Amino acid sequence: MPDKRPLPSIVRDQLMDLLRAQGFKPGDRLPSEAEISRLWDVGRSSVREALKLLEQEGLVQAERGRGRFLSSLGSLSVDRPITRFESATQMLASLGRSSRTMVLSVTETDPSPEAVEALGLAEGERVVRLERLRSDGDDPLIYSVDTIPAFCIPGPVRHVDWTGSLTELLAIQGHLPVSSAARLQAVELPEQVRTQYHLDGFGPWLLITETAITTTGRRVLLAEDYHRGDAFTFNVLRR
Amino acid sequence: MPDKRPLPSIVRDQLMDLLRAQGFKPGDRLPSEAEISRLWDVGRSSVREALKLLEQEGLVQAERGRGRFLSSLGSLSVDRPITRFESATQMLASLGRSSRTMVLSVTETDPSPEAVEALGLAEGERVVRLERLRSDGDDPLIYSVDTIPAFCIPGPVRHVDWTGSLTELLAIQGHLPVSSAARLQAVELPEQVRTQYHLDGFGPWLLITETAITTTGRRVLLAEDYHRGDAFTFNVLRR
Repeated sequence: MPDKRPLPSIVRDQLMDLLRAQGFKPGDRLPSEAEISRLWDVGRSSVREALKLLEQEGLVQAERGRGRFLSSLGSLSVDRPITRFESATQMLASLGRSSRTMVLSVTETDPSPEAVEALGLAEGERVVRLERLRSDGDDPLIYSVDTIPAFCIPGPVRHVDWTGSLTELLAIQGHLPVSSAARLQAVELPEQVRTQYHLDGFGPWLLITETAITTTGRRVLLAEDYHRGDAFTFNVLRR
Repeated sequence: MPDKRPLPSIVRDQLMDLLRAQGFKPGDRLPSEAEISRLWDVGRSSVREALKLLEQEGLVQAERGRGRFLSSLGSLSVDRPITRFESATQMLASLGRSSRTMVLSVTETDPSPEAVEALGLAEGERVVRLERLRSDGDDPLIYSVDTIPAFCIPGPVRHVDWTGSLTELLAIQGHLPVSSAARLQAVELPEQVRTQYHLDGFGPWLLITETAITTTGRRVLLAEDYHRGDAFTFNVLRR
């Protein structure tokens, strides 16, 4: 599966992998823009953008006229930080987990009060509510409820293939979600869901409730993803 | 309880609160440095530092010669993001929860293989292992195991008051932890802990396993904090 992210994000990750592999320590000077550019044959502007991302994340410190250095934070390795926006589809792919998606239900409906609040919906605005289960063989991994303002999905919901990436589906309609505000909690699956879909006995789940927006700040998705606790961990740098 | 954080962090939070309260939208121009400085009577350098933090977090976009603007991400409100390093003591205080800390055990001991790995310990290096429970009345909130390299704590462990903030204790010894790499998981409490401390029946817990470092990158703390799932949520912006 090809890495579809923007080039600077890819360069950023490759560079951090390289620094780790080479045992870089806090205060060590990074390779120059020109060296990085030659290393992976990418343009200088993508390299500059990648370095800027690392600075924003606190992993790299720039000193005017002296170059860029690995920060003490950058010497702690953190794979796949939760601060990077990615869909469940992308996450499962990058974890190398094979999975299939089962659509449990999809309806056009009136929004819940939570959805009205999270998506900033107008009076009377309708939503599509999509309930899915991602599994690896017989192993349930993620139970999810997605709520999408109806204007994002033209035409009858039954004419849409809901088994693929929701991010891509929204992108095709010109509503690519690029960032989000997310809330994390350790929970049990709701009783009714456990019973209806035979999901009892899998222990605690990590619920990520996420409001995703487009580059223009339009709220296009409220995602409630229950990740099986014994199958997923999430990483983050704190400072 | 006074806010002991650095002034720029306080200004940053006050500013975001103000923008939210005034209903700022993506693309709206922020008050100038001078205005912010007058508003809370703080120096320009702290204001500049606060604005830089907001830029690094992607909440504010600076445009050369035009000023600073709220980003689309900044219009999503996120309280107490998990990307900010704070101790359990600070967190409980900012949530306004009263709590007392009970020391369950404290021993100087050989480190576990996980602690050797996380703290980068040398052969034969000893650690202090501290097991505590934070409660609000009869309500258990956080069960935690802290592992600290013995060099950070001079003298016999029984001469130390372990009921207060570990961050402050380390600070006094010149080892203030300022940032960390953390891992989040939804778990049950370990069987043995549930039985020994009568902590059964509180549902799932959110485990944060965190390696904390000083400004010089020294690893001074491995913290395993189990947060009761029905008492805590953690927020994060993703992009």
